[in-house]
Amino acid sequence: MFQNYDVIVVGAGHAGCEAAAAAANMGSKVLLITMNMQTIAQMSCNPAMGGIAKGQIVREIDALGGYSGIVSDASMIQFRMLNRSKGPAMWSPRSQNDRMLFALKWREMLEQTPNVEFYQDMVKGLLIENGQAAGVLTGLGHKIKAKAVVLTNGTFLNGVIHIGEKRLGGGRVAERSAEGLTEQLVILGFESDRLKTGTPPRVDGRSLDYSKMEEQKGDEAISGFSYLDTPKPSMQRSCWITYTSPEVHDVLKTGFDRSPMFTGRIEGVGPRYCPSIEDKINRFAERDRHQLFVEPEGWNTVEVYVNGFSTSLPEEVQYEALKKVRGFENVKFFRPGYAIEYDYFPPTQLNYSLETKQIENLFFAGQINGTTGYEEAACQGLMAGINAHLKWRGEKPFILKRSDAYIGVLVDDLISKGTQEPYRMFTSRAEFRTLLRQDNADLRLTEQSYRIGLASQERMDKVLQKRKDVEDIKKNLKETALEPSEINAFFQGIGGATISEKQRLEKIILRPNLNLEDLSRNVPKVKEALNGFSKEAIEQAEIQTKYQVYIDKEKELVDRMRQLEDLEIPEIFDYQRIISLGAEAREKLTRVKPRTLGQASRISGINPADVQILMVYMGR
Amino acid sequence: MFQNYDVIVVGAGHAGCEAAAAAANMGSKVLLITMNMQTIAQMSCNPAMGGIAKGQIVREIDALGGYSGIVSDASMIQFRMLNRSKGPAMWSPRSQNDRMLFALKWREMLEQTPNVEFYQDMVKGLLIENGQAAGVLTGLGHKIKAKAVVLTNGTFLNGVIHIGEKRLGGGRVAERSAEGLTEQLVILGFESDRLKTGTPPRVDGRSLDYSKMEEQKGDEAISGFSYLDTPKPSMQRSCWITYTSPEVHDVLKTGFDRSPMFTGRIEGVGPRYCPSIEDKINRFAERDRHQLFVEPEGWNTVEVYVNGFSTSLPEEVQYEALKKVRGFENVKFFRPGYAIEYDYFPPTQLNYSLETKQIENLFFAGQINGTTGYEEAACQGLMAGINAHLKWRGEKPFILKRSDAYIGVLVDDLISKGTQEPYRMFTSRAEFRTLLRQDNADLRLTEQSYRIGLASQERMDKVLQKRKDVEDIKKNLKETALEPSEINAFFQGIGGATISEKQRLEKIILRPNLNLEDLSRNVPKVKEALNGFSKEAIEQAEIQTKYQVYIDKEKELVDRMRQLEDLEIPEIFDYQRIISLGAEAREKLTRVKPRTLGQASRISGINPADVQILMVYMGR
Repeated sequence: MFQNYDVIVVGAGHAGCEAAAAAANMGSKVLLITMNMQTIAQMSCNPAMGGIAKGQIVREIDALGGYSGIVSDASMIQFRMLNRSKGPAMWSPRSQNDRMLFALKWREMLEQTPNVEFYQDMVKGLLIENGQAAGVLTGLGHKIKAKAVVLTNGTFLNGVIHIGEKRLGGGRVAERSAEGLTEQLVILGFESDRLKTGTPPRVDGRSLDYSKMEEQKGDEAISGFSYLDTPKPSMQRSCWITYTSPEVHDVLKTGFDRSPMFTGRIEGVGPRYCPSIEDKINRFAERDRHQLFVEPEGWNTVEVYVNGFSTSLPEEVQYEALKKVRGFENVKFFRPGYAIEYDYFPPTQLNYSLETKQIENLFFAGQINGTTGYEEAACQGLMAGINAHLKWRGEKPFILKRSDAYIGVLVDDLISKGTQEPYRMFTSRAEFRTLLRQDNADLRLTEQSYRIGLASQERMDKVLQKRKDVEDIKKNLKETALEPSEINAFFQGIGGATISEKQRLEKIILRPNLNLEDLSRNVPKVKEALNGFSKEAIEQAEIQTKYQVYIDKEKELVDRMRQLEDLEIPEIFDYQRIISLGAEAREKLTRVKPRTLGQASRISGINPADVQILMVYMGR
Repeated sequence: MFQNYDVIVVGAGHAGCEAAAAAANMGSKVLLITMNMQTIAQMSCNPAMGGIAKGQIVREIDALGGYSGIVSDASMIQFRMLNRSKGPAMWSPRSQNDRMLFALKWREMLEQTPNVEFYQDMVKGLLIENGQAAGVLTGLGHKIKAKAVVLTNGTFLNGVIHIGEKRLGGGRVAERSAEGLTEQLVILGFESDRLKTGTPPRVDGRSLDYSKMEEQKGDEAISGFSYLDTPKPSMQRSCWITYTSPEVHDVLKTGFDRSPMFTGRIEGVGPRYCPSIEDKINRFAERDRHQLFVEPEGWNTVEVYVNGFSTSLPEEVQYEALKKVRGFENVKFFRPGYAIEYDYFPPTQLNYSLETKQIENLFFAGQINGTTGYEEAACQGLMAGINAHLKWRGEKPFILKRSDAYIGVLVDDLISKGTQEPYRMFTSRAEFRTLLRQDNADLRLTEQSYRIGLASQERMDKVLQKRKDVEDIKKNLKETALEPSEINAFFQGIGGATISEKQRLEKIILRPNLNLEDLSRNVPKVKEALNGFSKEAIEQAEIQTKYQVYIDKEKELVDRMRQLEDLEIPEIFDYQRIISLGAEAREKLTRVKPRTLGQASRISGINPADVQILMVYMGR
């Protein structure tokens, strides 16, 4: 009943959806297999996309021609550009989303992608031919062939849910887990292990007293995720902030003896940077409160997500503790928080293309690789989908470098270092974060994607236009000079130093706390210089001008790093003497004795700072 | 963690949603418990509401203040008034619905019903106190108390799914079944049995050739289900009609030896009037084709429902057969059809209020009572919700008579006769179907519902206005007389007999194939007589006038029946001592314990002679 497909994608979460869309848009005949077509693109945890480092990833996915940005824009109920007060490298878009709309929009977009077909069934195993992946075997007994298979099983592989002392099988609460696949992969030589993640209770918004919380509104102007001109909502919904307290912590502690985290029932390692509330209390005993974000689940629902209160304590303890939180005195639960353990495959078993080293034509993406987070999953899905397509086409893999994208950082971290706990992206993981900004993902990535046949002509044209506009604006900034009489009144108005002789705009704009938007509103000549250019192009030219020095410095570093990749480390090098290295780094370097700096940098536990230190000691 | 509720409703399908809404709107504090809050009000089978007899039920639900009509109107993608060419007793509204929107709208409406609270968990048992239902026990271990419990478990109780020789546990495909409840109820003395139902494959609309099918468009003007002024869509989507053929049947037959229907693997009895395609071929061997309705699943989805092709044959057989159907030559499956077996409780174990006879304060509604169909489930939910509320309030039950509503027919049929196969409503089940029309459900029922505190003031006011308008129109029809000169040109135009003397409009309108709308468009005096009245009121006055004779005749019959109907049988009545009754009659009367002589007369196996004997023993 099934044709032979080019690519089969197993699982339709963030990773699977991006993988299917990418491969299909490049020309592969794709079959997306999901256990339930009604739950395509479920946001299993919080109803939000983006955030620090993660928002940059969504922008990168969009620049490459993925759908996550478009879907997020279409379903957002609130948008904020985080860290606006810091430098542009830290600006991070984040949206609250309507959980239902997000899933509907994803499904709609996939259905409108001609090469994507769907089938509802559980994949129980792989078809292996000549030691290579050649398709899948399903629960209903179908053998479906494909030239490449992408596994994106999320938390479903042998998923076990914990709530206090209760254990339930399931890939998400009220959904089945998937069995058979891990077992086959282990037989095929894969190493697998267990990870754990968790989610907070969902509660009835009608039972909360928002007057006791701090309101958090969205930005006045929504910039959104996609570089395309997606429509943005004209209204937004607020989130709310409240806090735990010593009293809350005391109640939570009464459940610690029944916590699957502390009693050893959960063996999988949890996400360090998205810990459960019991974990936070335990690890940060000195803190007497933790922030909770109270997030609406959509436009028209009373369901509320209690961000920051992830927990697997017994439900009564969750409830009694949450009742002590300001604004939650009369809280009603829709369902408790829970922890889930699932199988993952340490990602050192992958090539840079996300193809497995063991089995050719088999790709892994998302939580199966030990990551956590929608954005981390989505971008892996995108890369796996691209590379699955390129693989069967006999073309060389599409690999992003650490200096190209957060996605490059993520894949390199996973492949080189592996991960013993759910891997999450941070800006601090990127050495070149001045380059990897949310504002320039299109300039960094769209052309590369266009060349391999993914990014559309429309996207490419927009990038070319933006590049040209930015150059034109920068030229105008260089060529426009202001007389003291033209600008000093403005400077005086904002309490800034006046100028005594004519000054170029490109120099004026270097002043901190000064931006082109304000200037053009107040100084006719500036307005004229920027006339006809988009807000986005103006902002881009401004960032490039203001941060030129830092950007150039980082670009230089990128070049140097590239040379250092092959730099040999003398065999007699004594790491133990370099006390500025961390103890873990000293121990691992001594043990591994890397031949080159490149190899050193890819040892797990060796971070970019360690490599910098080595470079200094090697006399560079 | 839980307060004591007035009413707990278990299950959030059509029955559970109506039960929760009704009890809450009457003032009960309601907890709606569902295994998955993401699947509230799923249309498990076809994406449509209403149809013959079923459409009348939806109108009755709406007239009583239930939500099914409003939700159907809000989510419809197509509307048709079936049987328009027949008498108004046969007119039956039917909609195609957007499956996702339907569920979303239901959830939204429930969330906006202040007294409805939600909890996601599996109910594993009942709390029993003093032999009465006092709450539920959940899978997470909660004991939640309530004054009344409504069970609406649908196909989830020990649900087993069959596809060819494959068996899967589940309450719907990809969803778990519910265990524990049947077992406890059997221990408590309930009789339970198995039923079976089925669903057709879902396919990819992009793979169909609609040019080979017949298009079925919606009505030009949508009248809708609700008596309130709900917004109607401005566009509609078409359905398509195609047919099986001897070739298709031949392919299907190749799977009969692996059909769970024919190999005895399925023990439950299936719905006679909604048979699987293999059943149709088997039972109607003389027919060389069966009609298939090809129904879109929503506004923006390519998923398509193949109505008429319900099957549990092996999937390859389903596929190979469907490929032989015109327009389906290149069909792609999203998922196969399947059969599902589940537990039900023969409904003779219920009182008219849908409270169980065994356990006080326990109510059953929907498929658990052996019915099939969304509408049948929804109206039972509504009645159970109403009566659960009235019960704890100490008020007398709300019971609709067979002459009041299809709902009355349904409940009476279930209680009195029980059912050995999934029970579905037909117009033929109603003795008084000239009275039980879709156009007058509000006139029949809203006031009754208003009196018990369910139908809103708005509804009641609308009914009062409609009644007044109808009387005014009928007065105008009586008082308006047309001269031959005013009407004969019109009659000639439509090829009708002319009149030779002045005739009252109320007489003219008795002519078949003549209606007030046409008349008022063509005859100024008629237009004047109807000026300012709503289309609905005019139609109602017209129906009452045209069918007065039939209506009166049926009303007379109702009165005569009522005399018998209202003869109450004392509860202590000992049938075993009436040896003149046949053995079967004695046994059945003892088991059913009919409340009235009317009910006794409708028990299957009770003949008129038995009724006469009873009358004698009751002292008449």
